[in-house]
Amino acid sequence: MPTIAVVNGPNLDRLGTREPGVYGTETLADVEKRCHDAASGAGLGTRFFQSNSEGAIVDHLHDLVGAIDGLVINAAAYTHTSVAIRDALQVLDVPFVEVHISNVHARESFRHTSYLSDIAAGVIVGCGTQGYEFAVQRLAALIGADGS
Amino acid sequence: MPTIAVVNGPNLDRLGTREPGVYGTETLADVEKRCHDAASGAGLGTRFFQSNSEGAIVDHLHDLVGAIDGLVINAAAYTHTSVAIRDALQVLDVPFVEVHISNVHARESFRHTSYLSDIAAGVIVGCGTQGYEFAVQRLAALIGADGS
Amino acid sequence: MPTIAVVNGPNLDRLGTREPGVYGTETLADVEKRCHDAASGAGLGTRFFQSNSEGAIVDHLHDLVGAIDGLVINAAAYTHTSVAIRDALQVLDVPFVEVHISNVHARESFRHTSYLSDIAAGVIVGCGTQGYEFAVQRLAALIGADGS
Amino acid sequence: MPTIAVVNGPNLDRLGTREPGVYGTETLADVEKRCHDAASGAGLGTRFFQSNSEGAIVDHLHDLVGAIDGLVINAAAYTHTSVAIRDALQVLDVPFVEVHISNVHARESFRHTSYLSDIAAGVIVGCGTQGYEFAVQRLAALIGADGS
Amino acid sequence: MPTIAVVNGPNLDRLGTREPGVYGTETLADVEKRCHDAASGAGLGTRFFQSNSEGAIVDHLHDLVGAIDGLVINAAAYTHTSVAIRDALQVLDVPFVEVHISNVHARESFRHTSYLSDIAAGVIVGCGTQGYEFAVQRLAALIGADGS
Amino acid sequence: MPTIAVVNGPNLDRLGTREPGVYGTETLADVEKRCHDAASGAGLGTRFFQSNSEGAIVDHLHDLVGAIDGLVINAAAYTHTSVAIRDALQVLDVPFVEVHISNVHARESFRHTSYLSDIAAGVIVGCGTQGYEFAVQRLAALIGADGS
Amino acid sequence: MPTIAVVNGPNLDRLGTREPGVYGTETLADVEKRCHDAASGAGLGTRFFQSNSEGAIVDHLHDLVGAIDGLVINAAAYTHTSVAIRDALQVLDVPFVEVHISNVHARESFRHTSYLSDIAAGVIVGCGTQGYEFAVQRLAALIGADGS
Amino acid sequence: MPTIAVVNGPNLDRLGTREPGVYGTETLADVEKRCHDAASGAGLGTRFFQSNSEGAIVDHLHDLVGAIDGLVINAAAYTHTSVAIRDALQVLDVPFVEVHISNVHARESFRHTSYLSDIAAGVIVGCGTQGYEFAVQRLAALIGADGS
Amino acid sequence: MPTIAVVNGPNLDRLGTREPGVYGTETLADVEKRCHDAASGAGLGTRFFQSNSEGAIVDHLHDLVGAIDGLVINAAAYTHTSVAIRDALQVLDVPFVEVHISNVHARESFRHTSYLSDIAAGVIVGCGTQGYEFAVQRLAALIGADGS
Amino acid sequence: MPTIAVVNGPNLDRLGTREPGVYGTETLADVEKRCHDAASGAGLGTRFFQSNSEGAIVDHLHDLVGAIDGLVINAAAYTHTSVAIRDALQVLDVPFVEVHISNVHARESFRHTSYLSDIAAGVIVGCGTQGYEFAVQRLAALIGADGS
Amino acid sequence: MPTIAVVNGPNLDRLGTREPGVYGTETLADVEKRCHDAASGAGLGTRFFQSNSEGAIVDHLHDLVGAIDGLVINAAAYTHTSVAIRDALQVLDVPFVEVHISNVHARESFRHTSYLSDIAAGVIVGCGTQGYEFAVQRLAALIGADGS
Amino acid sequence: MPTIAVVNGPNLDRLGTREPGVYGTETLADVEKRCHDAASGAGLGTRFFQSNSEGAIVDHLHDLVGAIDGLVINAAAYTHTSVAIRDALQVLDVPFVEVHISNVHARESFRHTSYLSDIAAGVIVGCGTQGYEFAVQRLAALIGADGS
Repeated sequence: MPTIAVVNGPNLDRLGTREPGVYGTETLADVEKRCHDAASGAGLGTRFFQSNSEGAIVDHLHDLVGAIDGLVINAAAYTHTSVAIRDALQVLDVPFVEVHISNVHARESFRHTSYLSDIAAGVIVGCGTQGYEFAVQRLAALIGADGS
Repeated sequence: MPTIAVVNGPNLDRLGTREPGVYGTETLADVEKRCHDAASGAGLGTRFFQSNSEGAIVDHLHDLVGAIDGLVINAAAYTHTSVAIRDALQVLDVPFVEVHISNVHARESFRHTSYLSDIAAGVIVGCGTQGYEFAVQRLAALIGADGS
Repeated sequence: MPTIAVVNGPNLDRLGTREPGVYGTETLADVEKRCHDAASGAGLGTRFFQSNSEGAIVDHLHDLVGAIDGLVINAAAYTHTSVAIRDALQVLDVPFVEVHISNVHARESFRHTSYLSDIAAGVIVGCGTQGYEFAVQRLAALIGADGS
Repeated sequence: MPTIAVVNGPNLDRLGTREPGVYGTETLADVEKRCHDAASGAGLGTRFFQSNSEGAIVDHLHDLVGAIDGLVINAAAYTHTSVAIRDALQVLDVPFVEVHISNVHARESFRHTSYLSDIAAGVIVGCGTQGYEFAVQRLAALIGADGS
Repeated sequence: MPTIAVVNGPNLDRLGTREPGVYGTETLADVEKRCHDAASGAGLGTRFFQSNSEGAIVDHLHDLVGAIDGLVINAAAYTHTSVAIRDALQVLDVPFVEVHISNVHARESFRHTSYLSDIAAGVIVGCGTQGYEFAVQRLAALIGADGS
Repeated sequence: MPTIAVVNGPNLDRLGTREPGVYGTETLADVEKRCHDAASGAGLGTRFFQSNSEGAIVDHLHDLVGAIDGLVINAAAYTHTSVAIRDALQVLDVPFVEVHISNVHARESFRHTSYLSDIAAGVIVGCGTQGYEFAVQRLAALIGADGS
Repeated sequence: MPTIAVVNGPNLDRLGTREPGVYGTETLADVEKRCHDAASGAGLGTRFFQSNSEGAIVDHLHDLVGAIDGLVINAAAYTHTSVAIRDALQVLDVPFVEVHISNVHARESFRHTSYLSDIAAGVIVGCGTQGYEFAVQRLAALIGADGS
Repeated sequence: MPTIAVVNGPNLDRLGTREPGVYGTETLADVEKRCHDAASGAGLGTRFFQSNSEGAIVDHLHDLVGAIDGLVINAAAYTHTSVAIRDALQVLDVPFVEVHISNVHARESFRHTSYLSDIAAGVIVGCGTQGYEFAVQRLAALIGADGS
Repeated sequence: MPTIAVVNGPNLDRLGTREPGVYGTETLADVEKRCHDAASGAGLGTRFFQSNSEGAIVDHLHDLVGAIDGLVINAAAYTHTSVAIRDALQVLDVPFVEVHISNVHARESFRHTSYLSDIAAGVIVGCGTQGYEFAVQRLAALIGADGS
Repeated sequence: MPTIAVVNGPNLDRLGTREPGVYGTETLADVEKRCHDAASGAGLGTRFFQSNSEGAIVDHLHDLVGAIDGLVINAAAYTHTSVAIRDALQVLDVPFVEVHISNVHARESFRHTSYLSDIAAGVIVGCGTQGYEFAVQRLAALIGADGS
Repeated sequence: MPTIAVVNGPNLDRLGTREPGVYGTETLADVEKRCHDAASGAGLGTRFFQSNSEGAIVDHLHDLVGAIDGLVINAAAYTHTSVAIRDALQVLDVPFVEVHISNVHARESFRHTSYLSDIAAGVIVGCGTQGYEFAVQRLAALIGADGS
Repeated sequence: MPTIAVVNGPNLDRLGTREPGVYGTETLADVEKRCHDAASGAGLGTRFFQSNSEGAIVDHLHDLVGAIDGLVINAAAYTHTSVAIRDALQVLDVPFVEVHISNVHARESFRHTSYLSDIAAGVIVGCGTQGYEFAVQRLAALIGADGS
């Protein structure tokens, strides 16, 4: 069964408690449940990871090499500052969809640039946690039931 | 029944024939069919429009005032150059999702800026024509079955 | 009798209904009435035009060549994006006053630049619809009762 | 009776003698007479001030606190360089209209920026000394006959 | 017989009357006659179009798909502002030569950038209406007598 | 008893040994002692943390959620590069004072920008280790003896 | 007895009445009292000055040459525009601490640059009027009880 | 007989061998032959020069003073870096046409700026070696059979 | 006898005591003596003025209207920040030479721009106080013995 | 025996497997072997470290304080984003050579800037893994056989 | 006898014939005569050089090493483009004065930057050929009668 | 035997005498001897060239076409200003290594950009004259003993 990973970056462990007006009340566990259900329905296995450490995310992306067929990533703050995660995504070399829960284009100007977007398969912004489901569905379309 | 509109901008009438390597082989009619089906499944009516003219799009957005509950827009080239469409979207005053078929972040630098994104409800980039379906689903979630 | 034209650009057909907090409750017809009255009082004839289309505005400015002695223009969004209207104003070759109802300097940064201002006879910003009256009065002073 | 002040900045004491091709032949006294007449007609009292000193203008704006209902200001060169006058206008806290006799947008690029415009009630540029009359009329409309 | 199109943008319908010091006294019909003669001499058919509307130009370029072998385009003001015409030229997918009658490099800085030049086969600037003839000759050389 | 935390970022564990000409000879333990004394005198409890890892600082700020009433932070190098710590400070949601021992404005230009300053309660720069005491005193004033 | 001066710039004479939400309700006299008390406690004499005029501040700084051992300065708006005050501070040649009552980093972008910071001994921002006390304490530490 | 000069800059001596995919297989002698033939046909004499040295080109342009009626120049790399050649062209004071064989707008960004274009009579880009012929024809039109 | 004025700006009253390593040990009186001698030798009368106030310099320049034939100005810090003095120099309308004692190009970047240079007759930088003598000599050459 | 350290940053643990077309097929162990051999030949001891974590690299550089005489560092992605590693290198205070395997100048523009280069003893770019050997040789030359 | 050199750059061999309105009617020989006379009067020997070649100027500056005590240089166009001449001036290592005949600050923006000014002893702009005399006088003052 | 060339640019003929603190005391002949020895050891022939003239370097690179297998170039000042040398290196079409003796990244900002680096095989900076040896060794590795 083809498998996808869902990787969340810094501060997303606080989802549901952090600025609910901006990010909603769902927790990270809720989001991962959503992804799992969407993936299962599309015949995809799932792996989940969250860390506040840039290095730990790089390490984890290395661990995923050869083990997954697609990736959903919300790198949060590291989206705007981490070349290392960009490089690790190129090491990983599977299609990935970049997700942001809030509309980063409506926030501070430093959130308008991303080190990941130009090498992403797709970018989904401001669709709340539903954006993760879209990302899973997109990967399902891209990698097919047989993971190719 | 709540209703959404799907508005496509310049050159999208050539979809399926224009640079299929970038935009795929689906025609605009195919895309509108996709949107219709997704919307129907969510209990939403649909209206469709395409034009190569900035002014005609502004006119059409005015016609939609009071008639729709949400909007999917792929303004194509006008995304990057039209303040007039931005203003018309603020006149219209319903939530809208901005869609781009290709990954604009991986193309020329003038495609990296949008006059629409910061006032959009969501932005979906590089997910091919599937992105329209996601946009319809997002609007369904935002406006509910009763259009509120 | 010398004559002036009053040309309004995109979304100004929605005046009075669009964001009344920003633009007030007067309609475009009200504004044109204001201009007509001010012009009549100064012994000037008037012609009115509004369009959401850049090309239609250019066409109209061509139609006005040789037919008017001065121009009031609120190019709205096209102020910030249209070189074509600038060029058409140079074709027209009469003194014109640029008007903006709201204070564009207090809004988004892309509204702080104008393709028209440096070739305008005057620029009136943020004086509400009263600004049109000032523009008419300014033209009356510039072109005199005999249109010279 | 509600009262407005008319404040003129550096070099405007030389009006009428300085570059008459750009600024015309009216003197500052003529301009103040114009303002007085326009204000009287609208039931407004007037106070006048001119200085070449940034600090003296700040001092004067402080003196006006609580004493006036609106302000016309042509800060001339200080428009482009003085944060202190901007701050003093915020201390003063009445609506003000910014006036420039010549079309600053057609002159050196350093005259295209203003520290005052984004907090002004209105901005009138390139209408010659007639612009002062428009400013007085605008204030009359804004503050009403009763100064509110 | 291979065929080329000659497309002229906004304000070029006023050629011969607009700023003759800059653009000369030839009319658009004169220019089209020149192009026709040059093309005939090279064994090329010709089609002509002019519009002040960006959208109409895009529409027309779509109509030309499959019908021509090369294009001469003077997009005038839209050169500097229209991504839509750029995209339509890529839809059209024939070699095109960009022409400007006056020397845009000697004019306002916003005329120094072009959305078309980097995808053009050639760019001819400041050679007056003779530049159209050069463009026709260049296309003749590029597409050959048999249109390949 | 209301409590504050004092968080120090990368390389501050080397305080007292690193470039003493710039940073002085006090060690981090000395600085923490200073803060403890100042806080005790103001009736505030203290918690201390230092790490060279951006992720560990984010983790720690999460641990502090709900446990403290104010924060002193010297993010050192991360001041200029970490959006993640900025986000974590917003998660934490208590007033914080940003401290820099040396005068960052007199050093390399990349030290002149901070991802933290615009959301800080106060910023104290170049006052040596005494700056920490000021920060503690400021928090004491802001949160009061009862932590509100 | 070593002596310090406290110099306040434009609009600070209105402290307590100007935008109390931003600047608090203390008057300038209150602030000077605070400084006096803090300085006395540290064995320092004090001199006070406020002016809205850049030139008067420069004059005063010249008067202080040789008469003081340290300086607290809140140049307010002149912070961002005055090279003359910077130069006068270098003429004066004693350590000075730059103070801003509000958090300038959270306000307009033109308040993010300072002509004074890189030559200051320290910079204290956003700590309210308490910032003056910190500045006095810092000078006390720098210049010692004997003024050296 | 009026005479024109054709001046080629650095690396153009290698034409025909250098990157034939970009510059074609014609040699510089071929190009000069083309120019000679086109000029003869138009009743113009010709002089040719090529150098890799900026100073030698300046020297040569001085030698041409008073000896020619028009100039074709392909300054190649010096187009983008040489103020000295620009100045020499102003010393020379005859109309000149700037030619580039390849489309410089489609190459590195430093090739998008020219020190020559704004003072040129015309600019011909990306038309291959045919561009030289166009330049000769343009000069023929500008200077007439009698060189005036 | 034709007359010139020598105007010095802020902090130059401290010449000879301020940073002698940069500015030398001559006092302002010494400099004025130098200018007087040089002017006398050239048959020119002299007037001298120094102020730390931008407004006072503007006032003084107004006083000089009609009274002098040329001006030497070292506006010091106001060189880089004062549009008002620029405007006053245009009111004055005599040739002026801008002088800087130190080499401003070797100092902070904000000293590399001048509001005065582009309208000056000449600019003399880094020649110490000797630069004033050169400026007087230049004016003598420009205005002649008879002041024309 | 003098000793050097060789520190590798994020994603270099994947060397040999990551984009072999760009980085070659040698593994990190191979590279460390190369360095060891080159160092031994020069009479230098070696220590090796690799981490994907910015904080861990900072920690390690602290551990090296006093223990080594020179450093080879390939900070990979952190080269472009980490002020913390820069600061740690200044804490370490031994000469270091910055190495990049690929030619960063031929890649994305964000790889053209380095926080390390201006404080490096040398920078070696695009020489493949051989660059490490050069770096070791350079350090050998700099620190001598006796580590001074 | 101490000796100075006077070096002139590209196009200055045409002095007196090139744009006399800008540069005057004196020839280069006249200017060199002026310099010789001024230098003789100050007890200084002179050497002269002019070239249109950057490399020849560099060569000449090398030839002057050890042979002169000061330098007057008008590098003309190379002022704005030549790092090589800057480097050669540092090799030469004598005080030099940079001269420009016209006021470069009033001309094209690329003439507003100089690679030489920040390392010059002085800069004299817009004083016509008299500027060379001032430069000689300045060098005389700097190097003294005995060349030290 | 495969052969490499070593080309040195402006002012490097002064090596050993120019700023020895920056560039060391070795002469150019010493450096060429180093390169010769390193090349011989690797079985490579060598050719040497130095010039202060950009054009002469371009000429020489043309002479080397077909005659060498690799190149070491220290273009010195021309690194930052010469597109002509870049173009000549592309004409030459052999792998080349760019060398700088000093650390250009630690010097003036105009030395931080290179027209050569992105097309170089490798770049070696700040390794003193040893950098030339590394460059030779790198070329030996790239082109092999048989020059392929």
